[in-house]
Amino acid sequence: MSKSHTIRTAEIICVGTELLMGQVINSNANFLASELVSLGISSYRQITIGDNMQRLREQILASAKRSDLVVITGGLGPTSDDITMEAAAEVAGKQLELHDPSYEHIKQYYRRICRNMPQNNIKQAMIPPESIVFINKNGTAPGAMFLCNASTEDDPVHQSYLVLLPGPPSEMRPMFLEQVRPFLEKHNSARFRTEFVRLYGIGESAAEERVKDLIDAQTNPTIAPYASEGECLFRITQRIESENEADLISPIVDTFKERFGDYIYEIGGRSLKEVVFDLLFERKMTLSFAESCTAGMASSEFVDVPGSSKVLMGSIVAYDNNVKEQLLGVTADVLTDMGSVSRECAEQMAEGCRKLLNTDIAVSITGIAGPTAYGTNKPVGLVYLAISDKNGTEVSEINLSGNRMRVRRVSVLHAFNMIRKRLQ
Amino acid sequence: MSKSHTIRTAEIICVGTELLMGQVINSNANFLASELVSLGISSYRQITIGDNMQRLREQILASAKRSDLVVITGGLGPTSDDITMEAAAEVAGKQLELHDPSYEHIKQYYRRICRNMPQNNIKQAMIPPESIVFINKNGTAPGAMFLCNASTEDDPVHQSYLVLLPGPPSEMRPMFLEQVRPFLEKHNSARFRTEFVRLYGIGESAAEERVKDLIDAQTNPTIAPYASEGECLFRITQRIESENEADLISPIVDTFKERFGDYIYEIGGRSLKEVVFDLLFERKMTLSFAESCTAGMASSEFVDVPGSSKVLMGSIVAYDNNVKEQLLGVTADVLTDMGSVSRECAEQMAEGCRKLLNTDIAVSITGIAGPTAYGTNKPVGLVYLAISDKNGTEVSEINLSGNRMRVRRVSVLHAFNMIRKRLQ
Repeated sequence: MSKSHTIRTAEIICVGTELLMGQVINSNANFLASELVSLGISSYRQITIGDNMQRLREQILASAKRSDLVVITGGLGPTSDDITMEAAAEVAGKQLELHDPSYEHIKQYYRRICRNMPQNNIKQAMIPPESIVFINKNGTAPGAMFLCNASTEDDPVHQSYLVLLPGPPSEMRPMFLEQVRPFLEKHNSARFRTEFVRLYGIGESAAEERVKDLIDAQTNPTIAPYASEGECLFRITQRIESENEADLISPIVDTFKERFGDYIYEIGGRSLKEVVFDLLFERKMTLSFAESCTAGMASSEFVDVPGSSKVLMGSIVAYDNNVKEQLLGVTADVLTDMGSVSRECAEQMAEGCRKLLNTDIAVSITGIAGPTAYGTNKPVGLVYLAISDKNGTEVSEINLSGNRMRVRRVSVLHAFNMIRKRLQ
Repeated sequence: MSKSHTIRTAEIICVGTELLMGQVINSNANFLASELVSLGISSYRQITIGDNMQRLREQILASAKRSDLVVITGGLGPTSDDITMEAAAEVAGKQLELHDPSYEHIKQYYRRICRNMPQNNIKQAMIPPESIVFINKNGTAPGAMFLCNASTEDDPVHQSYLVLLPGPPSEMRPMFLEQVRPFLEKHNSARFRTEFVRLYGIGESAAEERVKDLIDAQTNPTIAPYASEGECLFRITQRIESENEADLISPIVDTFKERFGDYIYEIGGRSLKEVVFDLLFERKMTLSFAESCTAGMASSEFVDVPGSSKVLMGSIVAYDNNVKEQLLGVTADVLTDMGSVSRECAEQMAEGCRKLLNTDIAVSITGIAGPTAYGTNKPVGLVYLAISDKNGTEVSEINLSGNRMRVRRVSVLHAFNMIRKRLQ
C-alpha cells in the first residue's frame, strides 16, 4: 500500500441478513458513524445489505466511487453465507490468498478453547495480498484493508480504501479502535479537540435548557448534548488547524461547572462507575452491595472496571425476604409493618451488609422494578437506596418511570452516584 | 390511487443527520424490517442518508427503481432542514398542495397543548394530491403514500409506492401499525411460517457443518444459521401461499433433533434463561448462585425473567476470598493449595451457598475473566462451575476465549445450561 491520500468522505456498509430481517438492531452503523465524525470524516450514507454476491459487489463499487473510504462490517464468518471478503476483493480486482499469520491465529484460537478447528474456518484466513490485516483478539475472523480503484467521470484515478471488519460488536469495536482508527487519524486532514461534561441526576431537556444560550450561539467549539439511560452528557468539540491554536474549550467547561455544580460527576472520559472506583481505590476503601430488585446488577456492573477486586469484597443478593432477614438482619417487624420496599428496610439492609461483609461502605437497593407491584399498594418504579459507612446511614427514595430493565439500570446508577456524593 | 399491484420487494430509507452522525441508534430500520418480514415483503437494502436534496432525490429514485415499495422515515418536520416530502414529490413528478384536514389537525394539536402554532408548521400540511394521508396521533407531521413512476430497462412501466413516515419512533410506529400495515396486508401475497431451533454448547461453524447438506439443498423452507455470544440458532422459514399448505418445517426440526440432540435447549422462542426458569418453576424448585468472577451477573440476568422471585431466593457475590471462606465455608486449605479458581473451590462454593440460602439448587461460578490472571499461573478464560442439589454436586471446567465481558457472559450462559441439563 504505497499510495497515500487524504480521507475526507466515507460510507458505511453493514452486511447481514439478520439486519435486513430486523432481528438485531444495527449498533455497528451508529458506532462507526460517531467514530468517523470524531475523526472529521464526513459520511453521507449508511447501507445495510444482505449476503447476496451481486448486490454486495454493486454496492461496494457504488460506495467506493462516491467516497475515499468504505467501512464494511459483517459477513467475514466461516460459513458459505459469508461472502464479504470475496466480494470486496473482486471489486478491487484482487485474488484471495491464504494469509499464514491469520491462519495460525485461528488455529491457536481453537487450541486455546480446546476444540478442533472446523475445516471451513480456513476460509477466514483468505485475504487479498498487499492488505493491511487486522488481528481479531476476540474471535476468529481477521479484518483487512486494501485500496480499490473506483474511477468516476470526474476522477478517473479515484481510489477508495476498503476496510472490512467482523460483524459482532465485541469483535468489531476493539478492532476499529485499536487498529483502524490510528491509521485514519494519520490520513485525514481535520483535527479536533474534544471534551466531555458528564452529568447524573438531571434530565436531558432540563440540562439542555440551562445551556440553551451556549448551544444556540455555538459555531466553534460546537456543543452537542447526548442522553443515555439516566445519564446525560455534553460533547464540546473545537475544530483546529494546528495544535498551537488557543484552547476555546476550557472557558465553556467553566460555565458548565457554574451552571450544573454537583450534577457533574466527570469532566473527561470516565464513566460513573470508574469515577466511583477511583474514589474508593484512592482512599483504600472497600465496598459491598445488598441488592434486592437489582439482583446483582450493581455488583456485576461495578466489576466491569478492571481492578475492582481491590475494592468490591462481595455482595448479598437478597431477593427473597427470608434472605433479607436471616443474612442481612432486617427485622421481621420492618418486613411486616413497612414491607421490603421501605426506607427502614433499605437502612437495615445496608447496615447488615456492611457488618456481614466487613466493608467500609455498603449500599443497599430495594424497590419495585415491575411489571407489576405484587401484593403491595406501592407504585412500580419506587426504589429505596441506603449508603452506610462509619459515619452513619443515609437513605434515598426515588421514583422511576420506564420498564423493569430501566428501573433496575437507573437504580444501579443512582447507587453509584450516592457513593460519589458521599466521597467527593 | 386507482392502480393496484402486488408488493413483493421493499427498501427502507431513513433520513436524518443525527443518524449519519451516530448520535442516535437507528431503531426505525429495525422495526420496519421486521414488520416487512412478517408481511412477506423482501427488503434487500436499508439506507441511511442526510437532509441533502440532491442525494435524497437520487436515493429515492434508485430505491423506487429496484423495488415495489419504498418506506422513508424522517425529515417531515417543520424546519427548512426537513425536505423529505418535497424530495419524494419531485421524484414522483408531483406538486405539493395544502392538505386542509392535515392543516386542521396541526392547528388542533397546538390548541391542545396550549401553544401558538409556529408559522412554519404549515409546511407539514403540504402533501402531493391523490396521496393516501396518514394521521399523526402523536405529533404534528402527517405521513403520506403515493405512487411513483420508476421505469427501468427491464420494466418500462414499473411503479413503486412511496410511503413517508415521521422520524420519531413514538410517532412512526403507531402510524405504521395502524394505517400502513393494513394497506400492505391487502397488497402482498406471501405468507411465512417460521420456527427457531436454539442450541447451546456448540460453535456456529461446527453447528453448520452438521447440517450443511440441509442448508445447501434448501429452497423452501429456507434454513439460516445465526450466532450470538456463546449461543447459536437456526431459523427455518417456509413460504406459503395459504394457511392450508402442508407443514414442511417439522420434518426438518426432527432431523435437527437427531443431529444435535442435547445441544438443543429450545424449539421455539424462549431464551435459555426462560427455559431454565420454566423448568424450575414447574418443579417448584428454588435457586441460588454463588458468584465470583461473574459478580452478580448470573442472578441479575436470571431476574430479567418476570416472575423470577418465585424461583431465585438470593445469591452470594463472593468476589474476595474472605467472603468465600467466611460466608460460603470454602476451606482455607482449598484456597491456599488449589486457589480460588479450582474444581474444589467451585464445589465448596455451591454446597455452601445451597446450605446458607437453603435452596433446592445452587450454582457456583469462579474463574479468571481477565484482562490478566493476577498472581496465578492459570490462563485467562479458565472457569469452574458447580451445581449442587440433593443428589450431589457436579463440577464443570470450561476454557473461554475473548475479553473480560465475554468470559463473564458465556460463564453465565454455561451456568444456566448446567441447570437445564440437570433438570431436562
